[in-house]
Amino acid sequence: MTSLTEREIICILTKQFARQLRPLLGFNDDVSAIPLSSKTWIIVKTDMLVGSTDIPPGMTIQEAGRKAVVAAVSDFAAKGVQPTALMVSLGLPGPVARKTVQNIAFGLSQAAREYHCKIIGGDTNQADDLVIDVAGVGVANPKKLVRRDGARVGDVVAVTGPFGNPAAGLRILMSREKKKLANHTSLVNAVLRPKARLTEGIILAKSGGVTSSIDSSDGLAWSLHQIARASLVGINLHTIPVAPAAQSFAKERRISAIELALYGGEEYELLVTVAPNRFSSLKKRVPSLKRIGIVEKGSEVVAHLDGRRIQVEERGWEHFR
Amino acid sequence: MTSLTEREIICILTKQFARQLRPLLGFNDDVSAIPLSSKTWIIVKTDMLVGSTDIPPGMTIQEAGRKAVVAAVSDFAAKGVQPTALMVSLGLPGPVARKTVQNIAFGLSQAAREYHCKIIGGDTNQADDLVIDVAGVGVANPKKLVRRDGARVGDVVAVTGPFGNPAAGLRILMSREKKKLANHTSLVNAVLRPKARLTEGIILAKSGGVTSSIDSSDGLAWSLHQIARASLVGINLHTIPVAPAAQSFAKERRISAIELALYGGEEYELLVTVAPNRFSSLKKRVPSLKRIGIVEKGSEVVAHLDGRRIQVEERGWEHFR
Repeated sequence: MTSLTEREIICILTKQFARQLRPLLGFNDDVSAIPLSSKTWIIVKTDMLVGSTDIPPGMTIQEAGRKAVVAAVSDFAAKGVQPTALMVSLGLPGPVARKTVQNIAFGLSQAAREYHCKIIGGDTNQADDLVIDVAGVGVANPKKLVRRDGARVGDVVAVTGPFGNPAAGLRILMSREKKKLANHTSLVNAVLRPKARLTEGIILAKSGGVTSSIDSSDGLAWSLHQIARASLVGINLHTIPVAPAAQSFAKERRISAIELALYGGEEYELLVTVAPNRFSSLKKRVPSLKRIGIVEKGSEVVAHLDGRRIQVEERGWEHFR
Repeated sequence: MTSLTEREIICILTKQFARQLRPLLGFNDDVSAIPLSSKTWIIVKTDMLVGSTDIPPGMTIQEAGRKAVVAAVSDFAAKGVQPTALMVSLGLPGPVARKTVQNIAFGLSQAAREYHCKIIGGDTNQADDLVIDVAGVGVANPKKLVRRDGARVGDVVAVTGPFGNPAAGLRILMSREKKKLANHTSLVNAVLRPKARLTEGIILAKSGGVTSSIDSSDGLAWSLHQIARASLVGINLHTIPVAPAAQSFAKERRISAIELALYGGEEYELLVTVAPNRFSSLKKRVPSLKRIGIVEKGSEVVAHLDGRRIQVEERGWEHFR
């Protein structure tokens, strides 16, 4: 039997559920929306963390709890929406120890405090695998919501920070070499203690200068393609924003730094497109904002690096592989 | 290591999260609430179905998808709130077949149609166990919301239908005896095709005559105790509402029908308390409504059956056992 990829599964689900409605954002954006009025939409996002696939070696259960919240918050960040409340569903392998539950709860609360949202309820269940499913809920003015489909030809393509650290950190954790862990704390921490760019996302959305936005949890390349596809545009990069630590790690391991930055996944930076006359003022308010390319006509995502033309492939972090 | 029970887990979580806030309903009621204004609360409920514990033998994956939605909707029914949107997070054991995803999606959509809500997004993940986590979202006027803590001394205790069929059906399914399956379709269907009492719950809440309400997914006895505890009252039953089919099954098997009806779990009837002068008019609008007892002073839940006094124990369907 051929196993479906995550994209194929989402495609089947979307087809089935789209019969019922044309989703406002939903399956084609970072979050889903329920309109209350012309000025108020309820914004919802669920993100499921599973022990066997999402918790790398070396990550504590408390860090896993925290990460589950960060992943849901990151999608709100991309839309510029403050999540106000979180619901948490837990699947716990038995026998369940008190310490395990306390540590998960502590990690969840820690992240909720960091992002100023409240955990207001949830569900618990016995399961063969650890499952932490976080549903975030917030409220937004639909006119202020930054979608994936608003990029226009001529817009600046920018990111809120560099890429590649989580991919490098994940390799170090998977190798289980204790010495390397100590030498590469910034890489390892990028995996164990990710940060959602919520403050930046809210500032960017409020500015009105951002035309489209997406988070990068499936990797930079994948996110670039989603913006291009949703907005019916092409993207031309003049640089790949590789993090310095990832760059030296790649050199040391003799692997491609660009590969790490483009296709790594588990990233939490935001990818945005910005009206060209607004970039400088936005850069003042979000200093980490980095210009990496331009929106063009067409549908391709390419990079021009030192005179070389590189095709950015539509692949990235994907479950079910 | 002693394994925690589900109640103990919820207790640890509640303690941790309650530091952040006094939840409006949340951990002590069927649903959680996010206040938008004095007249509008967002209502949220998540319900996680796990393959290894929640899918009995004989239940198809399509029925499991449908059941996951019914379980979430049932909590909305108890509060008299229409869920308008559903988010679905799936954990799927690999390799994932197309037919599996299609069948789950079909079951989910089927239930969404039955209860007039829309599936607007979700998440998918690889997992060792099948997990279907449904988050329902709706909107309610807090003044119309029927809580668990409003029962008053003298109120009528009533249920929207009889109990025991799912407990009996579950035993038949667990026995895997094909002949029995054919002879007891109503019992088996109570498990495979449960129905949430959404229409009834909305009518009851709108009437203004219902003082407290809870669904019975953890069993009738458990629900009676939750109402008594939240409302600081005692409950005295004059009858146990055993379903006729469960009654004959119990007789045939020489087991206690009362045990099936009180402690079975997987039930979806609503348990409500009603102002005494409102019961008759409510009964006209919800004909299945059945009077089973009265709210009294104290904190005990007892039944008086044929002159015998029976203590109703605070136990029921519980995971992690």
